[in-house]
Amino acid sequence: MFKILRVDMAGQKAVFEDIPEAYQGLGGRGLTSAVVAAEVDPTCHPLSPVNKLVLAPGLLAATNCANSGRISVGGKSPLTGTIKEANSGGQLGQYLGRLGIQAIIVEGQPPAGKLFKLVIGKDKAELVDAKELKGLGNYDSVAKLKETHGDKVGYCTIGQAGEWKLAAASVAFTDMELRPTRHAGRGGLGALMGSKGLKAIVVDPSGGEMAPLKDAEAFKDAAKRFAKALTDHPVTSGGLPTYGTDVLINIINEAGALPTRNFSRGRFEGAEKVGGETLNEITVKRGGNPTHGCMSGCIIRCSGIFLGPDGAYVSKWPEYETVWAWGPNCEIDDLDAIARIDRMCDDFGLDTIEMGCAMAVAMEGGLVEFGDVRGAERLLMEVGTGTPAGRILGSGTAAIGEVLGVSRIPVVKGQSLPAYDPRAVKGMGVTYATSTMGADHTAGYATGANIMKVGGYVDPLKPEGQVELSRNLQAATAAVDTAGLCLFVAFPVLDIPDALVAIVDMLNAKYGLSLTTDDVGALGQRVLNIEKDFNLRAGFSAGADRLPDFFRREALPPHNVVFDVSDEELDTTLKF
Amino acid sequence: MFKILRVDMAGQKAVFEDIPEAYQGLGGRGLTSAVVAAEVDPTCHPLSPVNKLVLAPGLLAATNCANSGRISVGGKSPLTGTIKEANSGGQLGQYLGRLGIQAIIVEGQPPAGKLFKLVIGKDKAELVDAKELKGLGNYDSVAKLKETHGDKVGYCTIGQAGEWKLAAASVAFTDMELRPTRHAGRGGLGALMGSKGLKAIVVDPSGGEMAPLKDAEAFKDAAKRFAKALTDHPVTSGGLPTYGTDVLINIINEAGALPTRNFSRGRFEGAEKVGGETLNEITVKRGGNPTHGCMSGCIIRCSGIFLGPDGAYVSKWPEYETVWAWGPNCEIDDLDAIARIDRMCDDFGLDTIEMGCAMAVAMEGGLVEFGDVRGAERLLMEVGTGTPAGRILGSGTAAIGEVLGVSRIPVVKGQSLPAYDPRAVKGMGVTYATSTMGADHTAGYATGANIMKVGGYVDPLKPEGQVELSRNLQAATAAVDTAGLCLFVAFPVLDIPDALVAIVDMLNAKYGLSLTTDDVGALGQRVLNIEKDFNLRAGFSAGADRLPDFFRREALPPHNVVFDVSDEELDTTLKF
Repeated sequence: MFKILRVDMAGQKAVFEDIPEAYQGLGGRGLTSAVVAAEVDPTCHPLSPVNKLVLAPGLLAATNCANSGRISVGGKSPLTGTIKEANSGGQLGQYLGRLGIQAIIVEGQPPAGKLFKLVIGKDKAELVDAKELKGLGNYDSVAKLKETHGDKVGYCTIGQAGEWKLAAASVAFTDMELRPTRHAGRGGLGALMGSKGLKAIVVDPSGGEMAPLKDAEAFKDAAKRFAKALTDHPVTSGGLPTYGTDVLINIINEAGALPTRNFSRGRFEGAEKVGGETLNEITVKRGGNPTHGCMSGCIIRCSGIFLGPDGAYVSKWPEYETVWAWGPNCEIDDLDAIARIDRMCDDFGLDTIEMGCAMAVAMEGGLVEFGDVRGAERLLMEVGTGTPAGRILGSGTAAIGEVLGVSRIPVVKGQSLPAYDPRAVKGMGVTYATSTMGADHTAGYATGANIMKVGGYVDPLKPEGQVELSRNLQAATAAVDTAGLCLFVAFPVLDIPDALVAIVDMLNAKYGLSLTTDDVGALGQRVLNIEKDFNLRAGFSAGADRLPDFFRREALPPHNVVFDVSDEELDTTLKF
Repeated sequence: MFKILRVDMAGQKAVFEDIPEAYQGLGGRGLTSAVVAAEVDPTCHPLSPVNKLVLAPGLLAATNCANSGRISVGGKSPLTGTIKEANSGGQLGQYLGRLGIQAIIVEGQPPAGKLFKLVIGKDKAELVDAKELKGLGNYDSVAKLKETHGDKVGYCTIGQAGEWKLAAASVAFTDMELRPTRHAGRGGLGALMGSKGLKAIVVDPSGGEMAPLKDAEAFKDAAKRFAKALTDHPVTSGGLPTYGTDVLINIINEAGALPTRNFSRGRFEGAEKVGGETLNEITVKRGGNPTHGCMSGCIIRCSGIFLGPDGAYVSKWPEYETVWAWGPNCEIDDLDAIARIDRMCDDFGLDTIEMGCAMAVAMEGGLVEFGDVRGAERLLMEVGTGTPAGRILGSGTAAIGEVLGVSRIPVVKGQSLPAYDPRAVKGMGVTYATSTMGADHTAGYATGANIMKVGGYVDPLKPEGQVELSRNLQAATAAVDTAGLCLFVAFPVLDIPDALVAIVDMLNAKYGLSLTTDDVGALGQRVLNIEKDFNLRAGFSAGADRLPDFFRREALPPHNVVFDVSDEELDTTLKF
């Protein structure tokens, strides 16, 4: 039943086609990367007509498997120049799955200035002029789209940043309440969508159905065991639903690995004021509900709703990465301000990690003082109004660093480092350096073993064992991203042996396969090899798999450590 | 007698040291590249303290060899991230040679905000506070320096762009009249100098002497034969001294290879109005002298002086590349405006090629209209005043393209393409794509054989033979840049067999060697291999040796050709 929807923006045609042989057996990141590697010239300019935007739900989409509704977005990245996949929660993955759409491939470009929405329903898809959405943020875009398409659909949109093709632009997806709060944030894929003249995708799942299962009974049993693992593990059943991902602030601060003041220190004196415990407390105090899912089928429900002092909705709970990027990294200790900023980023359509890092570099360059909330909000507002300074900031950390002549630029392959200092969580440093995506914590989350002792323990301050840790995690993650599972399933998967078996059992039951758990790692390796090959052809040698030099030279307080995994070791990370 | 002067900006010490074994036998580009490759971490941020700025006169400096006074400037490029050498005329190369200084290596950084000048004389060198030069352009800097150091010295300075560490910043050198009109323009080495807190280098040659010669008679004879070749060849004795390098406008326009409107067409209707013939005519009419050398010892004398309508000095004659970048490429046909712009670029300290290309991309992005002289001048002025828009422009073509979301970005490895469309001069396309420096016409000037039939003929519109042509030229050029010779000696060298023999004879006579002409190519290959290895370690794979994809997709009028040298062939170019 599954099809590819191929959308030609030059001719404004959308046609369904059978899934080519080469793409079969893949979903999510595995599929977006396979399409990009096969169909996109690796040396093209990311905003040129020959780049393609690919959206794909995972292999377990439209099933009763818990937390299986992630949607992958792929293309050649406007930020990094590498292959890119960023995935998101929200409803679109499940809806596309129910309509039997395994991927949307958007190619070509319409005449300059034209703006379209892609409207998808059961066995139909068309491009419709969307000039009424021009210049609107994601919130206003969704509000306007709802006037026409109602609230029984899912929306994917870009804000001003995407329309202007800024390299930090995200792709937004609506959550269960139709708020555009879930984002494929990293790598500027919103700019790629903007370059296609595509402002929105509307998906009406009515008439669709759950994915067919080769062995429904076996699937049901495995799904139940998988759900049990999620509800058994303390992280997915306790920490995350209660405090959100922001639970990490105090943990990582305690570990001395919370990057503060543009990666100058590992502890922030204001950490407690912005941590998950405080987030929970003020949410409850203001009458809100701390436990909330970002997509249907989620049983972790870590996303929360942030209410202002007056009890009115401000944003979803800012994620740990957002709180960190705009908080400790900018020396800001005000959760209300961070929630406002989160809302602005969601509205303009911006990666909060990239933007927070860019702001900290702007602060290091003297454009705004560290800790100056008003100054930061003012400059961020300029991204939405499109001033020169705003456009520089919206182009990301490397861009604003270049323009301001700053040399401490925390990026790998042009993408900002996330919220774990690589000197004090060295496994993350290996992932940042060697990931096919540029610096990306989700590509191989070594923090689990380095800090939380999930799936074993590797001393975060020592170089030994980090490469092997990152290698295994990167392969496993590529498989998880291909299945379309929320990355947080990794906590039970690493600690509860039956969780991984249950995933494999579900894949087998859905597709009539006989995979073993070893095949999961092999699938991840296959995906990584596709991505590595693309990057090599795009111009990146192993020499690009390095952290910025200051991480090797400047010792990080309080542990006073530098990043000391050798280049030679780094180069073995993704050799399978 | 020759020494290296090593300057520690952190400790503010300048010490002479013997030339290490590994650097012996090298000068100019060969020496700067050897130092950078051996002493600089290829993955460092170019503006970080561990990058080094290297200045080196060539192997034939401080001799009576004609046109041997070029000075090479090297480092890891703030613009491209590759190794970088840019060389310049002016007096400093000869002066350093006379003082027995084979290289200046500037390392480390002073406390932020500190600004120094390096004052060099016979057997002495010191760093002196230069806060009085802060924020000054090159013209004002030199004027102020002259108050202290007089007019019997040579000056090397950076303007505002270098102080602000903008990636298009150049390093300026004074000519015989002490005007800061000669620039090591490409690759942002002015930003590297700025990051060192070094505003100026003052070189007093008094007490210095010509380089010792192992065989003075043989040298004299060879120098005479070499000078004869220069005065015999029609390009170096006729075209260049009469019309300057701007003689190329009408030639390249006629060939349909003059990039017009951001590389959209190969002919410009206003070409004649900005060509060398017109330049000569208005210069004579205004009482100026078309024939003028940019350094002592030059017998080509192509640099000219541009006078305004009132007969007053405006700038040196704008070079062909400058006229093209700001003229046809921006659809501007006003030589007076181009001369004013040239003066502004020289004063702020900016690479005119990078800036003209950046302006054309700004025009394509809608910031200024094509052909709008006043708009272009206004925006360029902002580089000098440091507004956000000005800083973006001063960061170069790739930066402004990213900020404006433009996809037709004519750069290779982040550096702008010069004045020969690679579709219609395919040998240049091969050089742009594969040079170790990013797009650089001086790295292997295939226009000679493609258009002017100098050194043979290879059809510019066909892919055949271009790789071999570029390969040989790139090796020969690396050797010429190592000798410190003006690149224009290549015209006689390619057509008059004795010219190359004379160069080898001079090297042998100066150093007591017994090189053959084959050894010259081998020297060039050695230098290129050093540079290639650095770039590989810096993160560049062969996939980075590509032209922007639009040159393969968009046919260039009037010949309606695309760039069609295959990737596989490109990858063989610098394989020796």
